Amino acid sequence: MHYQPRPEDARFLLNAVLDAPTRLRALAPFAEVDEPLQSQVLEEAARFVDEVIAPLNREGDEVGCHFEGGEVVTPPGFRAAYQAFVDGGWPALSAATEDGGQGLPAVLEAILYEWLSAANHGFTMAPGLLHGAYACLKHHGSDELKGRYLQKIATGEWLATMCLTEAHAGSDLGQVRTRATAQADGSVRVNGSKIFISGGEHDLTPNIVHLVLCRLPDAPAGPKGLSLALVPKVLPDGARNAVHCERIEEKMGLHGSPTCTMRFDDATGWLVGEPGRGLAAMFVMMNAARLHVALQGIGLLDAAWQKADAYAAERRQMRAPGAAPVSRGTEAADLIAEHPAVRRILDTQRAWIDGARALAYRSALMLDIATHDSDPKARERAQRWCSLVTPVLKAACTHQAFHGASDCLQVFGGHGYVREWGVEQVVRDARVTMIYEGTNEIQAIDLLVRKVLPDGGAALSAVLLELRDTLDASREADADVQRRLAQLRYLGTTVAMAAHANPVLPYEVADDFLRVTALTLMAWAWARIEVAAPDDADRLRAAAAFRRWVLPEFEMRLGIVKRACEGVALAHSAQEASR
Amino acid sequence: MHYQPRPEDARFLLNAVLDAPTRLRALAPFAEVDEPLQSQVLEEAARFVDEVIAPLNREGDEVGCHFEGGEVVTPPGFRAAYQAFVDGGWPALSAATEDGGQGLPAVLEAILYEWLSAANHGFTMAPGLLHGAYACLKHHGSDELKGRYLQKIATGEWLATMCLTEAHAGSDLGQVRTRATAQADGSVRVNGSKIFISGGEHDLTPNIVHLVLCRLPDAPAGPKGLSLALVPKVLPDGARNAVHCERIEEKMGLHGSPTCTMRFDDATGWLVGEPGRGLAAMFVMMNAARLHVALQGIGLLDAAWQKADAYAAERRQMRAPGAAPVSRGTEAADLIAEHPAVRRILDTQRAWIDGARALAYRSALMLDIATHDSDPKARERAQRWCSLVTPVLKAACTHQAFHGASDCLQVFGGHGYVREWGVEQVVRDARVTMIYEGTNEIQAIDLLVRKVLPDGGAALSAVLLELRDTLDASREADADVQRRLAQLRYLGTTVAMAAHANPVLPYEVADDFLRVTALTLMAWAWARIEVAAPDDADRLRAAAAFRRWVLPEFEMRLGIVKRACEGVALAHSAQEASR
Repeated sequence: MHYQPRPEDARFLLNAVLDAPTRLRALAPFAEVDEPLQSQVLEEAARFVDEVIAPLNREGDEVGCHFEGGEVVTPPGFRAAYQAFVDGGWPALSAATEDGGQGLPAVLEAILYEWLSAANHGFTMAPGLLHGAYACLKHHGSDELKGRYLQKIATGEWLATMCLTEAHAGSDLGQVRTRATAQADGSVRVNGSKIFISGGEHDLTPNIVHLVLCRLPDAPAGPKGLSLALVPKVLPDGARNAVHCERIEEKMGLHGSPTCTMRFDDATGWLVGEPGRGLAAMFVMMNAARLHVALQGIGLLDAAWQKADAYAAERRQMRAPGAAPVSRGTEAADLIAEHPAVRRILDTQRAWIDGARALAYRSALMLDIATHDSDPKARERAQRWCSLVTPVLKAACTHQAFHGASDCLQVFGGHGYVREWGVEQVVRDARVTMIYEGTNEIQAIDLLVRKVLPDGGAALSAVLLELRDTLDASREADADVQRRLAQLRYLGTTVAMAAHANPVLPYEVADDFLRVTALTLMAWAWARIEVAAPDDADRLRAAAAFRRWVLPEFEMRLGIVKRACEGVALAHSAQEASR
Repeated sequence: MHYQPRPEDARFLLNAVLDAPTRLRALAPFAEVDEPLQSQVLEEAARFVDEVIAPLNREGDEVGCHFEGGEVVTPPGFRAAYQAFVDGGWPALSAATEDGGQGLPAVLEAILYEWLSAANHGFTMAPGLLHGAYACLKHHGSDELKGRYLQKIATGEWLATMCLTEAHAGSDLGQVRTRATAQADGSVRVNGSKIFISGGEHDLTPNIVHLVLCRLPDAPAGPKGLSLALVPKVLPDGARNAVHCERIEEKMGLHGSPTCTMRFDDATGWLVGEPGRGLAAMFVMMNAARLHVALQGIGLLDAAWQKADAYAAERRQMRAPGAAPVSRGTEAADLIAEHPAVRRILDTQRAWIDGARALAYRSALMLDIATHDSDPKARERAQRWCSLVTPVLKAACTHQAFHGASDCLQVFGGHGYVREWGVEQVVRDARVTMIYEGTNEIQAIDLLVRKVLPDGGAALSAVLLELRDTLDASREADADVQRRLAQLRYLGTTVAMAAHANPVLPYEVADDFLRVTALTLMAWAWARIEVAAPDDADRLRAAAAFRRWVLPEFEMRLGIVKRACEGVALAHSAQEASR
């Protein structure tokens, strides 16, 4: 079986939990995007993913990409599927209509990409960078560059890459050495070597547009010396540019996506944005890109869950403890879905998927609001949410994708370890999401050190107070969430104070702080889902699993952070006393 | 770089923490096995693993095993390495001298197999079942069978398999359908199909001895109807027996070990032990086999840790927070080993490896005592330890192998996801250890439902009290461990009481109960290690990491189990009140 998107689940979250139709229609560009239209887009997206993309996943993993003589051949069926993807207008779903796009909300594009990733992560890497390249060029490109490339990228007619990493510069982009030399005609000559470039070379589109982080002569050392250049594979005059793929990586998974080492030998390019402002130009789409990685995680976990759920509803082993389940009949053994250990895995992962989805869809909605709301204060609030919540979701959802998919593999016993059922592929594919677009450790530092601490926790507080106001303290579950929101607010202040005495401390507890935040947000999401679906047995079972098995980590992580802060306070007092 | 065993670490645990030399020499067969001899065996084993076995690991994964026309070709170098392994007498390390073995303690064999697994898990699967087959045959085989097969197996001249699983019978061996029909000459004819048979076919030895779980005609349904038959690939008269490999599996990892589907078509065999006592005959080596899987987990985690530790000591990215490390010099970036997030991963995994090793080596020592001590009470105490602690170590060490190896992969960033550094192979290989020899969920049920609850927690209490008596309450760390030992004892009683009211409850909390037990044992191990190495900076840093990052899970899991028991008590009171 392959992955099947469930538009009804997405609609439930959008309509009943997030009030998305109303909120979207309040934004000028989406005045006509009513609920029936949203539903129709989701139904069509689901059908396309189910019929065209999902069936190619297994072969994409087993055959993989092949490299020979500088060319990359993608797995069987990928070319035709990509053409169908372009013909259907899917790459351009949220691009502006004036650029050849559909002008639809980011939240619908987010759901489309969640499903694509769940169905075929390798394939989805190819168009996965289009929207980022589009946004980057739209905001920072010259009119001439935009005229030449924007529509090609928006429609997906040409694919794009982000060329950041070099052998010695991974998390530390300040060490990038690729050089760009200005030419009299306004172009630059680019020289250097990049690694880990997804889709650096392939046979899906006739041209590939590389966005290359590079350094102009005499640029200062470190990140402030970086510029961004657009370097196409094929030059405007039709000549082949001097950018070449040297090899592709053998990876743990994601075999459907070529990970390329790219060499730039006096390649012709043009700067995007100001010299020295390369990182800023790339970071314009950071929140959207990281949110998409979070959605990849959610999708992959759902793919693993669907497989495990189907297997557990067919496979029989041993008697389940307790009273005979109704499904027993004359069978010698019970369905493994009736065994508590299996039930726990399935319900726990379901809890992660649905809770994280509510948060991720809310974030995508906030991206729409941050871009389009006529009220600057509303835009600012939405932007604050995105800034704080995006790293949390990127880390938590990708962590859960790998670990939860591994739990789903466990449901299959030995059958999970062999290729046949496809669940081990999900585990292998998911692993990379914890690394790319900034490792999960870097997300944690981004959250705590760059976003929570600089204002002493004020922005975090503001976001949490907004969530508090959506809850009804007379409901027991809501009151519990309110307590956790308050604990997290206080924790932010506590760490901010301790950080004055020991500036290393935040780096030591960043992961735990992020987990406390993720679990608080998840608790909020589940309280909201329960209110929206008070009679849905499956959702209530997932809610119970969340409280019973997942949420206890909140206290554990809270304790780790608090003890670290107390340790600092004690050391500080001792130091003061000894003076 | 490949894995390198460190005999000095094993010696530290054996000598300074476990007092192994004295305890072993008190056992009659090991009166001459003094500390210098033990050290010499470990040094030679380390050299053999380092020089012969470890270098084949990478190619073993990449080339893997090949199947054609019923034959299996093992990866390059495996045949010669296996011959060297046999020539060195390593398969027979703990087999009795009268069977052609070396007559050495089980604890030395355990360490050898930990290193072998760390160096090359795929290769090690081949001889990994020898000792179990040897023990099974020695205890249950007829004199004629023993005469024909025991020495061949003890020396490793012929390899052995365990043929248990069938397509519909995995965790539930009671459903096994393979038939054995008695013949006039005392042999049986075996018919059926087995799956997931490690080393079912290969080119390492001229004969393969299969131990096959099967069912005689008219045997009762379920596990009590199972018998065990020895079915050799080559019959005593040199003819090829009717047992054939039909295919090998494509797996997530462990490519160096062929996982075979075996067909028995009127194959000739002989019963081992009594008819209907097949499971009992197989379970004779269960504790040893499960302990070996725990050691595989420890070894694999150590292999991942060595890679990550070496990488972190070379790779530079960004400035580490806080004061400039001494290693900075004129470098533009600091070693990633100085970044708190990386340091935390390395120290935490080190804490798991060393703590779990202390427990696993102690368990192996208890196997020696349970077999050889002249005092029946000492044998009984040792057996009690093995019975309770083995499932805990099997589950906890293999869980950590996979999850901890994944954390070590994270240290490499994107470089960890590609094959080059070898760490992703460890993650893939390790995943199977959570499944085979009884899934980790089955280990948890084995611990709680089969071993702790039947006597109301008495055996568990006895083991924990023994540990308590090794501690010195005047040391703060020891007193902390004593508190946890008491909490776990009380928890056993609490669950036993709650189970009366709700017999399903133990199945729901079994995983958490196992984790509480594992963390308590680990806390004990670290208290002992600290006392033995009060000035060892690396070990003290690992001890601190254990208390800071690992041990908080104790309270979390304890809380989950207690709340579940309280829920039962509340429901029970409500029921009583409503009568």
